[in-house]
Amino acid sequence: MDRDILHVDAGGGYDILIEPGVLDRAGARIKAALPKAKRLFVVTDSNVSPLYGPRLVASLETHGFEVHTRVIPAGETSKCAAGLTDLWEWMTAHGITRTDAVAALGGGVTGDLAGFTASTVLRGVGLVQIPTTLLSQVDSSVGGKTAIDLPTGKNLAGTFYQPHLVLMDPETLATLPDGDFMSGMAEVVKYGCIWDAAFFDFLADRPSRPALMGDITHILRTCCDIKRQVVDADEHDTGLRMILNFGHTLGHAYELAGEYTKWSHGQAVAAGMVTAARLGVELGVTDPGVPCKIESVLASLGLPTHIDCDFEHIEKAVGIDKKSAGDSVTLILLEKIGAVRPMKLPKSQVLETLAGMNRR
Amino acid sequence: MDRDILHVDAGGGYDILIEPGVLDRAGARIKAALPKAKRLFVVTDSNVSPLYGPRLVASLETHGFEVHTRVIPAGETSKCAAGLTDLWEWMTAHGITRTDAVAALGGGVTGDLAGFTASTVLRGVGLVQIPTTLLSQVDSSVGGKTAIDLPTGKNLAGTFYQPHLVLMDPETLATLPDGDFMSGMAEVVKYGCIWDAAFFDFLADRPSRPALMGDITHILRTCCDIKRQVVDADEHDTGLRMILNFGHTLGHAYELAGEYTKWSHGQAVAAGMVTAARLGVELGVTDPGVPCKIESVLASLGLPTHIDCDFEHIEKAVGIDKKSAGDSVTLILLEKIGAVRPMKLPKSQVLETLAGMNRR
Repeated sequence: MDRDILHVDAGGGYDILIEPGVLDRAGARIKAALPKAKRLFVVTDSNVSPLYGPRLVASLETHGFEVHTRVIPAGETSKCAAGLTDLWEWMTAHGITRTDAVAALGGGVTGDLAGFTASTVLRGVGLVQIPTTLLSQVDSSVGGKTAIDLPTGKNLAGTFYQPHLVLMDPETLATLPDGDFMSGMAEVVKYGCIWDAAFFDFLADRPSRPALMGDITHILRTCCDIKRQVVDADEHDTGLRMILNFGHTLGHAYELAGEYTKWSHGQAVAAGMVTAARLGVELGVTDPGVPCKIESVLASLGLPTHIDCDFEHIEKAVGIDKKSAGDSVTLILLEKIGAVRPMKLPKSQVLETLAGMNRR
Repeated sequence: MDRDILHVDAGGGYDILIEPGVLDRAGARIKAALPKAKRLFVVTDSNVSPLYGPRLVASLETHGFEVHTRVIPAGETSKCAAGLTDLWEWMTAHGITRTDAVAALGGGVTGDLAGFTASTVLRGVGLVQIPTTLLSQVDSSVGGKTAIDLPTGKNLAGTFYQPHLVLMDPETLATLPDGDFMSGMAEVVKYGCIWDAAFFDFLADRPSRPALMGDITHILRTCCDIKRQVVDADEHDTGLRMILNFGHTLGHAYELAGEYTKWSHGQAVAAGMVTAARLGVELGVTDPGVPCKIESVLASLGLPTHIDCDFEHIEKAVGIDKKSAGDSVTLILLEKIGAVRPMKLPKSQVLETLAGMNRR
């Protein structure tokens, strides 16, 4: 496997290193990116800590960092205000300074929570994202969105804060359960759908986890490069960045219908992409062959292409979606594979079309 | 009194309006600055709410805003993680969107807490600062620093987030207790010391609250204009902005010695400026006539020019000061009135010089 470096311009500019075994060289890489840092505050979760914590800490200590580690309980519930406050108090009690850094080792929950903490403690310290899941490697670790959940909803408080370095070790995917790997693949397929038809075909030719892992560095690089281009054009999510939500409005309906436990985010997004493609065909925007192509790739990966869902959940997701403004909603549709087209439509038209599709 | 507009370039750029009676025209001013906002979330405290809340809300409602108001207990203890969480949940429960805005009506505590909330709810919404105390008008409402206190220390979590509009009504100072007015005057005198000798003399000619209030718009404008220039040159506090800390390192020692209750921030800074000026003379940096000039202005305003302080508190303040890095400390000294000179010095030299001054 090869080593890849991507440079993102957003924030102060930073590198994404995609490098097998980089976990054991993290100390050197971080020293080069953040030469003034003396203390490293590692945030990781109870699943990831025993697997990769000791290797990261050893590499950091070898390079002279004073390392402090906090293990949060694995799972979405850690991404809350109490978790944020706990990290703030822990870091400041251990004398963090503005030139020190936080390292987030784990999946999206760890990255979102540790990133929010790093962006706000002392009004911002160094931040290194070390994503260990496919979903966080291709999605949440790039782009600078941090967040916690509130009792009123998910991701309702957070910041835009670009990391100073992203270290991606494809070898950490070896310990990822199949379900989590395939959930991440839904987002990978999404990048092909919205941006790169050749990449979509590349994925279609590799319909199994071993086949995909054979080219994982290329896959990670391609996804991060697409996200990088989108984020550089729209750091604060006021325009182009919305195309990353392809499949997510309807996916949100399926997550609601399954009360966030029956379907993983990736499963919901998979079915959401198929429905969005079918909706695009109904509206005369999407080439009629597109839904089947997407279904075929997703099905070969064991991802759902249809999820039963009460219409009330669809109405709710379309109505309260963050992209909604007044009576219209901006849907992310495809013209064809690789060519995305955001469309602002009356909510009533969207809901009627979806209702008609449901009746057939 | 005249009306003044200052424009700050930091952030997306915003105006500071210094305008007597602007409280009654806040709705129109906010509508012009934030045309997409529908909901206004007013945060104010239990002292300010009965004095100015109804006028602000009436003006907002006249201009069609959906207004929600939260009254926090007056005092520094509201500036905490629990207060932040409460505001997040309140705003999201009332359907805040990214184009809506938060209005902070009150002093520094209200502005810091409401500003931190506005910068993080939905990853950032509109923010209008409406400072009603002299200290917040000349200091915390301009510059984009937000914060809360942690059990581990003051202002340890926060963001850099520029407001979208600052509305300053000098008439609100009429209800400010004398102690708070004079505490704010310490920061006003500071601007003369570090930046503008003519302004320093202007203040020296007005040695009473009524005399100062006769020219208050000019005073507010001058202070905000100096802070604006400093912030535009150094938004994220990595260089020039440190000159705003003149008198604050030693002031911090006096606050510690008085356990944050015996001396107000302004009183501590007043005595801190005198000590910093005397220290500068000892070090051969400061013109020997400077300490007396500063003492004279401060004394005429009833501010302390000397505070007894155990040497351990001075050591602590010099040692843990945020500007400290390793064995050196950057002190903000004056060459003469209006000419500031930051100097990086060994901590040992600073402490020995101060000890020598104490023995005399």
